[in-house]
Amino acid sequence: MKYGITGASGRMGRELLEVFGPDDCVATVSLEDEAVLDRPEVMVDFSRPEALERTLGICREYRSALVLGTTALEERHFDALAELARTVPVVQGYNFSMGIGLLKMVLRDYSTALDDWDVEICETHHVHKVDAPSGTAILLKDAVGRDCPTHSLRLGGVPGDHSVSFANEGEVLSFGHRALSRKVFAMGAYRAARFALDSEPGLYDFEEVVRCALKR
Amino acid sequence: MKYGITGASGRMGRELLEVFGPDDCVATVSLEDEAVLDRPEVMVDFSRPEALERTLGICREYRSALVLGTTALEERHFDALAELARTVPVVQGYNFSMGIGLLKMVLRDYSTALDDWDVEICETHHVHKVDAPSGTAILLKDAVGRDCPTHSLRLGGVPGDHSVSFANEGEVLSFGHRALSRKVFAMGAYRAARFALDSEPGLYDFEEVVRCALKR
Amino acid sequence: MKYGITGASGRMGRELLEVFGPDDCVATVSLEDEAVLDRPEVMVDFSRPEALERTLGICREYRSALVLGTTALEERHFDALAELARTVPVVQGYNFSMGIGLLKMVLRDYSTALDDWDVEICETHHVHKVDAPSGTAILLKDAVGRDCPTHSLRLGGVPGDHSVSFANEGEVLSFGHRALSRKVFAMGAYRAARFALDSEPGLYDFEEVVRCALKR
Amino acid sequence: MKYGITGASGRMGRELLEVFGPDDCVATVSLEDEAVLDRPEVMVDFSRPEALERTLGICREYRSALVLGTTALEERHFDALAELARTVPVVQGYNFSMGIGLLKMVLRDYSTALDDWDVEICETHHVHKVDAPSGTAILLKDAVGRDCPTHSLRLGGVPGDHSVSFANEGEVLSFGHRALSRKVFAMGAYRAARFALDSEPGLYDFEEVVRCALKR
Repeated sequence: MKYGITGASGRMGRELLEVFGPDDCVATVSLEDEAVLDRPEVMVDFSRPEALERTLGICREYRSALVLGTTALEERHFDALAELARTVPVVQGYNFSMGIGLLKMVLRDYSTALDDWDVEICETHHVHKVDAPSGTAILLKDAVGRDCPTHSLRLGGVPGDHSVSFANEGEVLSFGHRALSRKVFAMGAYRAARFALDSEPGLYDFEEVVRCALKR
Repeated sequence: MKYGITGASGRMGRELLEVFGPDDCVATVSLEDEAVLDRPEVMVDFSRPEALERTLGICREYRSALVLGTTALEERHFDALAELARTVPVVQGYNFSMGIGLLKMVLRDYSTALDDWDVEICETHHVHKVDAPSGTAILLKDAVGRDCPTHSLRLGGVPGDHSVSFANEGEVLSFGHRALSRKVFAMGAYRAARFALDSEPGLYDFEEVVRCALKR
Repeated sequence: MKYGITGASGRMGRELLEVFGPDDCVATVSLEDEAVLDRPEVMVDFSRPEALERTLGICREYRSALVLGTTALEERHFDALAELARTVPVVQGYNFSMGIGLLKMVLRDYSTALDDWDVEICETHHVHKVDAPSGTAILLKDAVGRDCPTHSLRLGGVPGDHSVSFANEGEVLSFGHRALSRKVFAMGAYRAARFALDSEPGLYDFEEVVRCALKR
Repeated sequence: MKYGITGASGRMGRELLEVFGPDDCVATVSLEDEAVLDRPEVMVDFSRPEALERTLGICREYRSALVLGTTALEERHFDALAELARTVPVVQGYNFSMGIGLLKMVLRDYSTALDDWDVEICETHHVHKVDAPSGTAILLKDAVGRDCPTHSLRLGGVPGDHSVSFANEGEVLSFGHRALSRKVFAMGAYRAARFALDSEPGLYDFEEVVRCALKR
């Protein structure tokens, strides 16, 4: 798959390069510059909102699909995505981990059967993480569908653990997820790129990529 | 709910008495004897196959529903259950934990999305448990739908832990269950009894009780 | 070992009876009453401060050793214990779990080597527990020797889990303890009773019982 | 600290460079070649036995201390190390994780107090690991001091988890370690280098580095 990366020199950019394969990278975009060697089938952007305009420009010019993991998007960004999605497939998401995607679905499907159980959420991340609880913990709480205590541990270099524990008088049922490294998000991006290349033009959420994996 | 117990003096019988409430127990059955003070709406039997005939006799005489958790049942026992189920609701199962019931469903629903992940099962039980892997571990492996390594730890007085862990290069997704005591099975039996009293005559698996909880 | 129990009809009293063996129980004491069939070698009291006077009376009369797990003791109680300890061995403690006793020692011995690691404590107890953090969590934090975030989960019927996790950029080291039931404290009391019968008169902390196990 | 690396281009070499700081690297050694810009205070070698002779040559020429994490060493290698250790400090070890070092000490110190508890070891590593149980699991079993069941899970990209669980009828005590990445060993090597620079000439085991951290 010939692809392009926005922000290839950042930490996430390097992970993307490794997972997608450095030899197939035909376009690199940064805030200041861009270099296009060949038509990218898909552009992958996990950088910053300021870079989005340049990425969109490439997508329009080369009819490239788009996989977008940039956070802090505003309404005008979504307007631009909707516009692009008329002509190419666009996959957007805030967490590209397959495991978290599945966990959200499991919780949404099964939480009603557990509504007379207690439930609490724990998340552990490296000490450099400034927000607490993590965005993913909030998203899991939404999937549980009711308010529940959430505990945030900040310990060393832990990439990211999440657990949702349900219990009643007699038993404990727990769902856990552990990111081993940033690579997990690059792997999700790759799966999203494959999904995009098989899809009609349109704006897709990463959850549709996960759901698609379920149907196989 | 007026109910009767077969094997009330055993360890599981005492748990059932506590969960169902000792005051509503109107019938007790043992291998040698039976005492019926009033019509039981439901009979609960978690004892031994040899006691089943007496339990069935009470169910027939009083048109009592039946919740049966006895293991090592043979074909002739199932024939007798099917016969009884023409006139009253019968709930049969080998593991009356709601959590394990839900876990089986989750694994059945989501394992296909995880078929390119590695998977292993761990179970920990008290040292008095003679079989390994546990029946529940086998049942979880069936729900996963493919062969996977299973590890059995035998440690002190642990009532019963099970975990199913999926992983790929970037993440680990795990599903865990922990029984806190035998009480969990008595609680499942109580839920099954409630289910039976709301149901038409017929032979039900405990999973239908779990599924019913999902629909609320 | 011929022994007596104060508060034999309470939940902890019944656990003590089961672990010490009901046949060897020669004395029972309650707030209102006492019954002594034979000289108890040791009295075991895990009841309430109000009952202590009666327990002490028996110890004095029969020269019985004392194992005391009652909490909320006041200074005057300790004065009375010191007085009794001149003539018989007295073992006093607030947590009679061997595992927690060992964990405290490990933390005290090794925390200095971990003082540039992050550390956090998690404890999970049943929803009926009113205090948070648990007394045991506080005691573990003391053993760590520095302030650290403590998370309290209240979930169903969990008897009591504690974990102390240390981490730096590259690794996580964790110490965990899980009570399987109230029985663990009765087992610790039994060990303390054996220790008392082998000891000179004096006032001992439960930690000395644990330390003694280390020396074997 | 001015240092040199043998095998700087390998995966472990790159971790060492990042932890020690690329700017202070004054010497690089490979099987075929060597480049020395300045006198290295310490040489760090986590490569292969075949490279040891070149590393030793540099240490002799520049009176550099040595931190050696190479495995599969033979007797003749140890003879050469002993010879070098007459003139400079040499730290040798097979696992440079501080956490595993501490865990070994804890287990050695406290296992006797737990000799009537059951004990089992679990380790989880990535699927590329060929040996099972892991060398570290064997080393932990030695520290426990008695034979115990060991379970090896091979799951996705897990860098390395180890747990030692003790249990009796009433409680479970567990010691767990989790490597977050290869970086943990580079951090241990750095600590060993600091230790070497503060030490007299001699041959030291990595455990002495850990023990030294305990004494602070």
